[in-house]
Amino acid sequence: MMVLITYDVNTEDAAGKKRLRKIAKQCVNYGQRVQNSVFECVLDAAQCKQLQHTLLSIIDTEKDSLRFYYLGTHYQKKVEHFGAKPIYEQEGVLLI
Amino acid sequence: MMVLITYDVNTEDAAGKKRLRKIAKQCVNYGQRVQNSVFECVLDAAQCKQLQHTLLSIIDTEKDSLRFYYLGTHYQKKVEHFGAKPIYEQEGVLLI
Repeated sequence: MMVLITYDVNTEDAAGKKRLRKIAKQCVNYGQRVQNSVFECVLDAAQCKQLQHTLLSIIDTEKDSLRFYYLGTHYQKKVEHFGAKPIYEQEGVLLI
Repeated sequence: MMVLITYDVNTEDAAGKKRLRKIAKQCVNYGQRVQNSVFECVLDAAQCKQLQHTLLSIIDTEKDSLRFYYLGTHYQKKVEHFGAKPIYEQEGVLLI
């Protein structure tokens, strides 16, 4: 199934920036970065649970926000894109 | 239906920052800001078309990215949240 993962990480301090990098690094193992803080991952139930567990071990639950949207298997028709398509490298850094 | 709207706006210059504010301002008319660049809007087909039209008139399609995810009517079970829930004021500015 397609799982959309969105996050807001508080990057006011160095620890926050580190969390942000770690989250992106985990997410790219499972899917495609489509925007700066948005990943589309195709996961089975076990992978989803594993990724959730990993991400929850990284975020600061008092400062950061993490959301999962379960789009099912027929997700192609559920997504529409407009505008630029930035290209991200493997670790999720924007290539300019 | 629930429409999830995510966007990346290039805010390197003042014009970009202005576009970002304008987009947020439009989206709050239709829904709830759940993360910095993520809105959940409950829209009928006409409203969705209208909002899309408005947002497309704001973004710079060469620099900004805008995505719509159509989550249908039974969206409550399709969303899971972890961590902090920031509170945003009406125009979408984060309240700290």
